[in-house]
Amino acid sequence: LIQHFADRLQAAIDEKGSPVCVGIDPRPDRLPGVLIEDARTPEAQLQAVEIFCLGVLEAVAPIVPVVKPQVAYFEALGPLGYGLCDKIIRRARDLQLIVILDAKRNDIGSTAEAYANAHLRGDQAPDALTVNPYLGRDGVAPFVDAARAAGRGLFALVRTSNPSGGEIQDFADPEGSKLYEHVARLVSQWGAAPELLGECGLSCIGAVVGATYPDEARRLRELMPEQVFLVPGYGAQGATAVDATAGFRSDGRGGIVNASRSVIYAHAREEYARRPWQEAVAAAARAFADDIAGALDR
Amino acid sequence: LIQHFADRLQAAIDEKGSPVCVGIDPRPDRLPGVLIEDARTPEAQLQAVEIFCLGVLEAVAPIVPVVKPQVAYFEALGPLGYGLCDKIIRRARDLQLIVILDAKRNDIGSTAEAYANAHLRGDQAPDALTVNPYLGRDGVAPFVDAARAAGRGLFALVRTSNPSGGEIQDFADPEGSKLYEHVARLVSQWGAAPELLGECGLSCIGAVVGATYPDEARRLRELMPEQVFLVPGYGAQGATAVDATAGFRSDGRGGIVNASRSVIYAHAREEYARRPWQEAVAAAARAFADDIAGALDR
Repeated sequence: LIQHFADRLQAAIDEKGSPVCVGIDPRPDRLPGVLIEDARTPEAQLQAVEIFCLGVLEAVAPIVPVVKPQVAYFEALGPLGYGLCDKIIRRARDLQLIVILDAKRNDIGSTAEAYANAHLRGDQAPDALTVNPYLGRDGVAPFVDAARAAGRGLFALVRTSNPSGGEIQDFADPEGSKLYEHVARLVSQWGAAPELLGECGLSCIGAVVGATYPDEARRLRELMPEQVFLVPGYGAQGATAVDATAGFRSDGRGGIVNASRSVIYAHAREEYARRPWQEAVAAAARAFADDIAGALDR
Repeated sequence: LIQHFADRLQAAIDEKGSPVCVGIDPRPDRLPGVLIEDARTPEAQLQAVEIFCLGVLEAVAPIVPVVKPQVAYFEALGPLGYGLCDKIIRRARDLQLIVILDAKRNDIGSTAEAYANAHLRGDQAPDALTVNPYLGRDGVAPFVDAARAAGRGLFALVRTSNPSGGEIQDFADPEGSKLYEHVARLVSQWGAAPELLGECGLSCIGAVVGATYPDEARRLRELMPEQVFLVPGYGAQGATAVDATAGFRSDGRGGIVNASRSVIYAHAREEYARRPWQEAVAAAARAFADDIAGALDR
């Protein structure tokens, strides 16, 4: 077993041939009709979501190195949703997928420790967790400590891909430096200790850097040379493969591009609509992986 | 039933006589020995936590208007912890307590909607939820919409009480305005629509403003005249009752001061150690409520 998160991630990317991640965002109202049309009770919906998520994992596991379950959709299913999320994480790990739990957790002191214990420690924990840095170093340190001890990773929000992310993240200081650049410098510092770096030279403390601002992503690479970038915003949010890989290192490493709905709900896309839903998911995942790999080959 | 969150909150404060909130942060290793010493399995620990939380609610319900369960400690108990959190919320509401769920959730679009559906909608939902504003307006709007529709409230992090909060929140623009002031202006705007204001003149969109910076709290009151401030940092983090109420309006309204461990773990404080643990909790809650009410009377 490769102990350091960044090395484990890089090995998985090398094996599959493309640095991509499929987001697992299960919404009962978007599931393939064949799974959900007879599910009228909450229990039946939960079961349909489980079949869907497990089917997505099975379809994408031969193609992509990473999946990213979004906790919000499991929380929305009620208390039993959390158990389902754990089951999906376990199954993904059994399929040799790297699992990033997208939870954007944040708090301080022993409360942050409680979140870190819940999501980073123990054999059943995902490989990495997303966190929100608004509380500063004391809000992130307990997660960093847990990630280091458990061979796990973190991705701190730096620059998000949504239209109003700039409302706060573009706030600028007297030198014209923006908040997201300041946060990038902090994340780089938080992840710089030698014991946090893998053999590949990358840190287990990564950053979320949206695909919708490629010029900013290049600037952020200068500020965060050792961070793995988790890049949302490809596809549904309008960014191309070239945009999405703008912040990668010149050797084509140091990033993972995420796509969620364009892959898992491929059955609703005209180009894939005539296939069984799992084949549609696999085809969309293949097209996505090839698009990103192609952009890095140029 | 009073429909608007701020009016419901104010009625509860008026009835109990002090604008205070007790944080429910259940850590198995800090529970009274009588509850936890024989709990050796995870199931027995979960049951001990349940008995403790229900006992705390019973002890504080006659004294304080608000409780604030911290989700992290329930997440740390595993999938069954979420069901327990729901049970604690239901019991608190049965006891006529206003319930603020401290979850600091944040995301965008339909993902934020999923969190809002999980925590703000439905008869079983808490009265209010804490959220993190780093993603800007699209990260908060789905929560605002849900809160308005469901008669619930939000508290957005503005200025946190922890030592390194300033590392990001004090980032300053060319005019010397700090990020937390910028966020305060945004929160004030987000909460300003007439349909968000209660009859008491306060918005259902409140702000988290730490007690450890009373001068800043006064400044933040100017920037957020219609926000209820949820004030952490009293007691354990060193702020006095005068510090903690510095941001209240001149009529003594517009805020709730939180204390967590100093109340719920009162059995471990020398001054309360000779009493049964629930009596210790009640006595500490009474002293806390009187201290805050006294600071507002001066």
